[in-house]
Amino acid sequence: MHSLLVMASAASVALAAAAAGNAPHWSYEGEGAPDHWMKLSSDFVTCGAGKMQSPIDLQAVNARGATVVATNYQTSPLTVLNNGHTVQANFAAGSKLISGGREFGLVQVHFHTLSEHAVSGKRYPLEAHFVHADSAGKLAVLGIFFEEGAANAELSKLIAAAPKHKQDATPVAGVQFDPNGLLPPSLNVYRYMGSLTTPPCTEGVNWHVADKAITASKEQIAALHVIMGDNARPLQPANNRLIVGR
Amino acid sequence: MHSLLVMASAASVALAAAAAGNAPHWSYEGEGAPDHWMKLSSDFVTCGAGKMQSPIDLQAVNARGATVVATNYQTSPLTVLNNGHTVQANFAAGSKLISGGREFGLVQVHFHTLSEHAVSGKRYPLEAHFVHADSAGKLAVLGIFFEEGAANAELSKLIAAAPKHKQDATPVAGVQFDPNGLLPPSLNVYRYMGSLTTPPCTEGVNWHVADKAITASKEQIAALHVIMGDNARPLQPANNRLIVGR
Repeated sequence: MHSLLVMASAASVALAAAAAGNAPHWSYEGEGAPDHWMKLSSDFVTCGAGKMQSPIDLQAVNARGATVVATNYQTSPLTVLNNGHTVQANFAAGSKLISGGREFGLVQVHFHTLSEHAVSGKRYPLEAHFVHADSAGKLAVLGIFFEEGAANAELSKLIAAAPKHKQDATPVAGVQFDPNGLLPPSLNVYRYMGSLTTPPCTEGVNWHVADKAITASKEQIAALHVIMGDNARPLQPANNRLIVGR
Repeated sequence: MHSLLVMASAASVALAAAAAGNAPHWSYEGEGAPDHWMKLSSDFVTCGAGKMQSPIDLQAVNARGATVVATNYQTSPLTVLNNGHTVQANFAAGSKLISGGREFGLVQVHFHTLSEHAVSGKRYPLEAHFVHADSAGKLAVLGIFFEEGAANAELSKLIAAAPKHKQDATPVAGVQFDPNGLLPPSLNVYRYMGSLTTPPCTEGVNWHVADKAITASKEQIAALHVIMGDNARPLQPANNRLIVGR
């Protein structure tokens, strides 16, 4: 009886459907690959029909200049998850991205191997996406490229705790995580309007991508790739968008 | 026989159709008003269906920063026209706008009363649009707001020569026109991607709007308004576009 009551809520019905295998299965290869995302669910049509999709090749810059962006990130207890597509750390409220005169609260950071964005056709081995939302639910994402080099200390904490298989958010006892450790020393960004890079590919995302890569070791990049596999969406057309870079 | 030969060219057929009243008549009031533009011709569907239309309220800025833009305008003999919608001066090749790492050649400047763009709901009494094209045919427009104040000397030349009724481009004997005279002392711009503000409302236009108005006299603004009437398209939705301002 208890389980029936729980099932009666809309959210739980959706979760039950997903657990029963009725939810669309998107992925990065085979029948669920990016070219098919728009056909997997009526909720995913934007993946195919959208004209402002991400990622893009940032070579398409058509405005030169510095846009003002600032982070105010706090150290907090580490919570990790593996959603079957990426490794992710969730953050407690309090860390902010300030952009376009608006404050966006940091929600989570997750990873892609190879990088999703490219510069003049070049993809980096790893890209972190810091996802933020403002009080109206508008999203801002900050992308950070990693190139092979010195190991990153914060990334080590995350990799050590990363679930190897699909697993809900789990606090990691005794580990404090400082998101500032995944940022370049000075933050200069490409700026454009795009989308989520995974279904439902929702548009209206304020994209910021740092123009200088930081480093992760070969072993760190390999460790994340072993867990996540290839999880970079192909490049999308720039279409008529404004893309600001230096 | 001569006229039949001329009529046989595609361009002349189109001109003849227009002269015969078969071309769609767009305007700013009545059946041809902006709300109906998209229905007047299959070539005008973007006026209604486009998601990146101009003008917009520049209050919608969602990125702060200075974008790099420069003009290199030359004085040249004045040529004016009245196309039934606006008063326009055409320019000889040689004047340039440099933006986003690209060069756009100045083609013409024309005017709107009231201004088409707005700032926080405010429209200025007059806006000039400097229209430029690059070698690939991509358009860049620079909008300049005028507020009521001191008379503008270059504008006086243009108003004195402006045809009161529809008239093809006509050289104005002995008058040199300096487009720099219609620019603010220092050029800081709003930057966004938009459209032509008249049918066919083509998108992919690199819009630049100066953030400081210059002045024209009450008499100059009135003189242009008498000739052109109200020729400002209503404000269009910003949608998901990036709009950069200070």
